[in-house]
Amino acid sequence: MNNFEFFNPTRIVFGKDTIKKIDKYIDKNNRVLITYGGGSIKRNGVYDQVIAALGDRKVFEFGGIEPNPHYETCMKCVDYIKENNIDFILAVGGGSVIDATKFISAAYYFEGYAWDIIASNKKIERAIPFGTVLTLPATGSEMNSGSVITLNETKVKKSFHSELCFPIFSILDPILTLTLPKKQISNGIADTFIHVIEQYLTYPVNNQISDRFAESILITLIEESKKIFSNPEDYDVRANLMWSASLGLNGLIGCGVPQDWATHMIGHELTVLHGLDHGITLAIVLPGVMKIMKDEKGDKILQMGERVFGIKDGEREERILKTIEETENFFISIGIPTRLSDHGLDENCIDPIVQRMIDRKWSLGENGTINPEKVRLILLDRL
Amino acid sequence: MNNFEFFNPTRIVFGKDTIKKIDKYIDKNNRVLITYGGGSIKRNGVYDQVIAALGDRKVFEFGGIEPNPHYETCMKCVDYIKENNIDFILAVGGGSVIDATKFISAAYYFEGYAWDIIASNKKIERAIPFGTVLTLPATGSEMNSGSVITLNETKVKKSFHSELCFPIFSILDPILTLTLPKKQISNGIADTFIHVIEQYLTYPVNNQISDRFAESILITLIEESKKIFSNPEDYDVRANLMWSASLGLNGLIGCGVPQDWATHMIGHELTVLHGLDHGITLAIVLPGVMKIMKDEKGDKILQMGERVFGIKDGEREERILKTIEETENFFISIGIPTRLSDHGLDENCIDPIVQRMIDRKWSLGENGTINPEKVRLILLDRL
Repeated sequence: MNNFEFFNPTRIVFGKDTIKKIDKYIDKNNRVLITYGGGSIKRNGVYDQVIAALGDRKVFEFGGIEPNPHYETCMKCVDYIKENNIDFILAVGGGSVIDATKFISAAYYFEGYAWDIIASNKKIERAIPFGTVLTLPATGSEMNSGSVITLNETKVKKSFHSELCFPIFSILDPILTLTLPKKQISNGIADTFIHVIEQYLTYPVNNQISDRFAESILITLIEESKKIFSNPEDYDVRANLMWSASLGLNGLIGCGVPQDWATHMIGHELTVLHGLDHGITLAIVLPGVMKIMKDEKGDKILQMGERVFGIKDGEREERILKTIEETENFFISIGIPTRLSDHGLDENCIDPIVQRMIDRKWSLGENGTINPEKVRLILLDRL
Repeated sequence: MNNFEFFNPTRIVFGKDTIKKIDKYIDKNNRVLITYGGGSIKRNGVYDQVIAALGDRKVFEFGGIEPNPHYETCMKCVDYIKENNIDFILAVGGGSVIDATKFISAAYYFEGYAWDIIASNKKIERAIPFGTVLTLPATGSEMNSGSVITLNETKVKKSFHSELCFPIFSILDPILTLTLPKKQISNGIADTFIHVIEQYLTYPVNNQISDRFAESILITLIEESKKIFSNPEDYDVRANLMWSASLGLNGLIGCGVPQDWATHMIGHELTVLHGLDHGITLAIVLPGVMKIMKDEKGDKILQMGERVFGIKDGEREERILKTIEETENFFISIGIPTRLSDHGLDENCIDPIVQRMIDRKWSLGENGTINPEKVRLILLDRL
């Protein structure tokens, strides 16, 4: 097992009718800014619940945060905060709204060009405290200190982390997910699945706990996703998927194991250059990463095949290929086609991505062996 | 799934040679009190590592904290702290030293009779910050906010919890466990196993994650304990057991599920009245709780049998009994005899325990159905 540090001070308030508990965890005298996205929270009753819970506090709003949130939008919000002396931010939405809120809370106190927090890993010294009301389980942002922001000007999508950017609390009410469109549910399941895979499907270091916890989440995602579309009203299914999403990327299953993240890095390119949804890009790229990297990842693919998909018979190579096939079939089963061509892309999309990787001198994967030529092979496999 | 809150701000610093990292997490100007137990840390080099890591800080010591720490000892330490203006406490030891340190840190600021924090659930408003260097994985105290203290005067062993009593950090270096006597390792494994069971073996609420995480820890304990005595130098085995102990009682696997704790409550009586080690009392009591409560717990016993022990064949009753037998055999396999008679006790020990339960009006278990008569049946089964 590798050495590790684990620190996660976010308070999770989970369950039915929990929005009202906001009142307990925000100071009565705070001036509160609600951040949100396209406005669905005003149509589905979430906004009204939040306003009721905030009671007599002075409330401000900043809406219109886009999916894959833009630096440019975040800085508009920073200006708005400066004008209104905000004490606390309440992000109401999914990963994009929460990621944007983290960056906003850090950028507010940052002196200089705030994109440097991301581009140059400039350390932040202070951040505005914030909480979240999660409406879309997927990214895990509600229980971690990371954030992914896109500089729209140059189409660069990149992450930053700071211990000052853990949410103070996150409200997770599975009932809020009942009104989500099917596509967002599927994307969220794929996103969670691949967060787990990035921390699991590398090489063995004899870490029994992180491995088994990762497998627990993968099995839960597979079993519950079989039920969610046939029983969309089943609360427990929603609850299991929501808690899986948070635990998939709160640092726990990454304790003491190597990590990959190549699928995410390649997927980000498909999003910024071609506008594909984040979850969809991951479902496209992962089977290619598994296939092209199957020698380095073979032992863990075998373990996953046996423990997650029950693949125990056959030769090593056969079981590895069967596991990759089952993984791809899982994405298809939740309604996500896994080929570039399914999403209107052909081989012309590959060269520009490979060139951007060369320009940025990227070597991806747990061993740093996924070079631009490997990325080409991965994407060629996904046509 | 039940509603829940989860909050755990303790920083875990895990791995080889991590004691030196103390330096990063204690203020340079703090006056630091080291609390410890019988003094083994001075013989095995741990104390020297801690002193080196503390560098130029002013260091004080309070040793002699006994297993099942006494209120009376803790209050002596509170007096010592008052004399020496301590800023930070560093608990170096196992669960007893850490539990005592939690109570000491709370009692220092408490006005009035400090035992009321435990006896009357008096809320504390402040506590001295503390960290831990764990030397004996077992209780999980290094990553939770609970503490069990014994009032020696009346032989009452009871717990308290406060969010102010989470360790700021805990150093978990598995190498420190290499010098532990076999008996302490066995007791620690049994303690962890039964912490998990108390949060798992109740009735199903369709919580896939908490169930599978609990099963992950149980399986890890069973598999790693097969190796620890034959390969005592195996670092990964030590590391897996150490991390299991923390995760067994850090609140995570208790999220959104009913909890039992009857085995602990009955076990505490055997400790205070007859001086049996905590882990041993649990291994004695648990098979009795499972047997006497097998109707209420049947569905989860079946699930445990299948997923943890691989018991899939036979009628329901047969599988339940087989699972109880396997559980008892597990304790025996790690060197803990599971009968009262194995530890010099006979049926005369039962009446006083039942009477103490009647006096305190206890109804134990996840359904509150383990009344004093059930406790009698449980203990009769364990003769």
